Amino acid sequence: MTDSGQEHHYTENVQSHLKQVEFLLSKHALLEGVVHRQELPREDRHALVDTLVHKHNLAELQRKLDSLHPADIAYILEALPIDQRLLVWGLVKSERDGDILIEVSDAVRESLIATMNREELRAAAEQLDTDEIADLAPDLPQNVMRDVFRSLSIEEREQLRAAMSYSEDSVGALMDFNMIHVREDVTLEVVSRYLRRFDKLPDHTDQIFVVDRDDRFKGVLPINLVVVNEPEVNVGDLMLTDTIQLQPDEKAEQAAQAFERYDLVSAPVIDEDGKLVGRVTVNVVLDFIRTESESDVLNLAGLREEEDIFASVWKSAQNRWTWLALNLCTAFFASRVIGNFENTIEKFVALATLMPIVAGIAGNSANQTTTIITRSLALGQITPDNARRLMLKELAIGGFNGLLWGSIAGLFAYFLYHSVALGIVMTGAMLLNLLVGATVGMGIPLVMQKLGRDPAIGSSVMITAITDSGGFFIFLGLATIFLI
Amino acid sequence: MTDSGQEHHYTENVQSHLKQVEFLLSKHALLEGVVHRQELPREDRHALVDTLVHKHNLAELQRKLDSLHPADIAYILEALPIDQRLLVWGLVKSERDGDILIEVSDAVRESLIATMNREELRAAAEQLDTDEIADLAPDLPQNVMRDVFRSLSIEEREQLRAAMSYSEDSVGALMDFNMIHVREDVTLEVVSRYLRRFDKLPDHTDQIFVVDRDDRFKGVLPINLVVVNEPEVNVGDLMLTDTIQLQPDEKAEQAAQAFERYDLVSAPVIDEDGKLVGRVTVNVVLDFIRTESESDVLNLAGLREEEDIFASVWKSAQNRWTWLALNLCTAFFASRVIGNFENTIEKFVALATLMPIVAGIAGNSANQTTTIITRSLALGQITPDNARRLMLKELAIGGFNGLLWGSIAGLFAYFLYHSVALGIVMTGAMLLNLLVGATVGMGIPLVMQKLGRDPAIGSSVMITAITDSGGFFIFLGLATIFLI
Repeated sequence: MTDSGQEHHYTENVQSHLKQVEFLLSKHALLEGVVHRQELPREDRHALVDTLVHKHNLAELQRKLDSLHPADIAYILEALPIDQRLLVWGLVKSERDGDILIEVSDAVRESLIATMNREELRAAAEQLDTDEIADLAPDLPQNVMRDVFRSLSIEEREQLRAAMSYSEDSVGALMDFNMIHVREDVTLEVVSRYLRRFDKLPDHTDQIFVVDRDDRFKGVLPINLVVVNEPEVNVGDLMLTDTIQLQPDEKAEQAAQAFERYDLVSAPVIDEDGKLVGRVTVNVVLDFIRTESESDVLNLAGLREEEDIFASVWKSAQNRWTWLALNLCTAFFASRVIGNFENTIEKFVALATLMPIVAGIAGNSANQTTTIITRSLALGQITPDNARRLMLKELAIGGFNGLLWGSIAGLFAYFLYHSVALGIVMTGAMLLNLLVGATVGMGIPLVMQKLGRDPAIGSSVMITAITDSGGFFIFLGLATIFLI
Repeated sequence: MTDSGQEHHYTENVQSHLKQVEFLLSKHALLEGVVHRQELPREDRHALVDTLVHKHNLAELQRKLDSLHPADIAYILEALPIDQRLLVWGLVKSERDGDILIEVSDAVRESLIATMNREELRAAAEQLDTDEIADLAPDLPQNVMRDVFRSLSIEEREQLRAAMSYSEDSVGALMDFNMIHVREDVTLEVVSRYLRRFDKLPDHTDQIFVVDRDDRFKGVLPINLVVVNEPEVNVGDLMLTDTIQLQPDEKAEQAAQAFERYDLVSAPVIDEDGKLVGRVTVNVVLDFIRTESESDVLNLAGLREEEDIFASVWKSAQNRWTWLALNLCTAFFASRVIGNFENTIEKFVALATLMPIVAGIAGNSANQTTTIITRSLALGQITPDNARRLMLKELAIGGFNGLLWGSIAGLFAYFLYHSVALGIVMTGAMLLNLLVGATVGMGIPLVMQKLGRDPAIGSSVMITAITDSGGFFIFLGLATIFLI
């Protein structure tokens, strides 16, 4: 549940919040300018008035910020250029720092943390739950983490240690510790009395967990069942025992798929001894899925990480370099492939005009194959039984498309250069290169999966390298054999 | 909540379910073969035994299927080749048809519906809630929809009509009608008694809605507050009034962002008269986000729609054609740009080997820009205030990268062909084309957004067309001026 004062149509809201903040900032900037200009002629009286207006202005901005949900403030911080972002960040009440740091993107978080001292960071971290501190930990200086650790209770230290020990893509990293547990031999009456001792149940408490005296997981009791049943019923008679259980070192993506498939709101996390160690809730899964899908799109474009749109040119350029450097290397290689056929091109310059067609279409077709295969691999739907069948299918599509588009390209070449042989070479090269494309488009993700690597990352650069160089080689090679 | 009999570590499960089904199917297929071969010599006795074993086999498969959650059966159906898929589909109990049809992907749903007659389809649809029927409607024949419509109550017809009237990407399309509402002047005692009349609350009931006698929305009452408060408290004193409200014709993406931002489980949908018309739940939002992100990735590769991996070659090829045809057109255009410089290339064949480098790197760099801009546009974080600033930044990055990678490429060209002029032309062309790339990489998504179109679709083909043709033109043009 949101704990903020949201008005009605929130969707206009977060964007209109942003507009209002921008407006207040621009008023502020205008005055800053006035004050500065005023200071030159030292007309103190005027400057004083302006400073008052100016202060009034900042106070208005601060009031506005105080009324916003932490997630909305995070959104606004992400949408503001650095100088304005830091001004707004300075106006946010320090007791909300932690909640906002958790909400902003990694890149923006870095820019905010860079302006905070050890004391402020410690105070911000201490406002958070242990699972949230664990999320923040990689961005915090070591001495701050030491301070934070010291301020925790023994149980919390244990939780923090546990949360930090799991790898970023495991269920353990999604887990929180805000679960309510009861014993199976009590009645709903007792449960209700216990629950009433809370002012407010932890967010996303759609079920409470039933454990024995050794904390071993026995089952779950949906809150809805507490509500619809009579108070004298026993927990043990109502609880569900055959429900989803997650393990802390399972892949987070698998847990996300379970949440989607079984429409879960929360799920217990059980260690290998059968003990309840935490729970995963749907809001965290939602964030995980969004982040994953965004990083898929970023990776496809060769961006190393999410980019703060207002990061410096230098920082943004670095984010994009690896990919461009890799592509430059493969382009150099492709260029040398063409270089080997300079004699052929000199004799028949039309080849130079046509060769990018052969390379380009096969690259596109291969990337289509990879996209489909990568998705099926992620869902675990490619089994040894059907992999061969799929390979044959992709080859058939490649061959079919090769004949179709190859013929069109062949006709194009024939009409331009009035050479039947050139047309045939063009068609043949397209067909062969599309078959190459189908093979690598399917083969590379499968091999990467076998090697335990994520097929979504880096496949496309390899595939394009092969269809480019391969296309040039096949086309110019065939031309050398049949045309020269 | 899941209503299925799930065992412990479900993640191994759905994949091991698939393996078990595949195993049973292969046993079945083996026997099919045996029976057929046996029939040739007409050894009836043998055939009979085999048929019995065979029947036993299918019964085992059916038992296995009966024990699975509809979502798991959907998963298995998607992972099976057509013939086996239809065999499994035939074994599924018909009263589960509706639930499974809702779960499978569009492409696979089509293949299943194609095998069902009017009566079966009507029966399947009637098992579903009205909002689910609306999801299925586009795939059902008209006469089936007429039958279904007739079988509904007046209230349900109204709901179905409403659900079908909203566009696919609106909140209305995500909405269901399973909400519980109460009046504000009753006590929690009364609410609890009312809730106990349900055997089970609708899924994802984390809050009930408070309305007046005209169904006008007044606020929400979280179930957790019912649980933690004393029975004599009044609903009106507890209900939250300043919460998220969705409108049925809002963009679904906006609602999804609200669920993410405010960690919602459900949210009321209110029409323009302030009446409660339905609710949206987080499981539907999760599916929406996954589908959207998948279609983003599919669109990037130019796939028109999600593909059934076992669709026929013909059908799959069609899914991929639009894109390939479009790319062929832009490739033809780029080819004609090169064609205009045939004389230049004839005189200096090295140009043919180097030109793909200029085109390729700028295309990659432009796509990085577009990816970042498209994401920020989707989040609404690009405002008139910052668009100009971002444009300048992207130009700066393009210029910077152009100088860096252009110099490296220039050196590469110089060392290969020992021409200082060629090196300089190469560097200059890279720099210019990267600036072109930054301009179109930023400009095209912004223009598409202005025109009310989705910048994620089709931007990349336009951008590549411009950086390819532009790259060839700039490089060969500069070469014609300075080298020839």
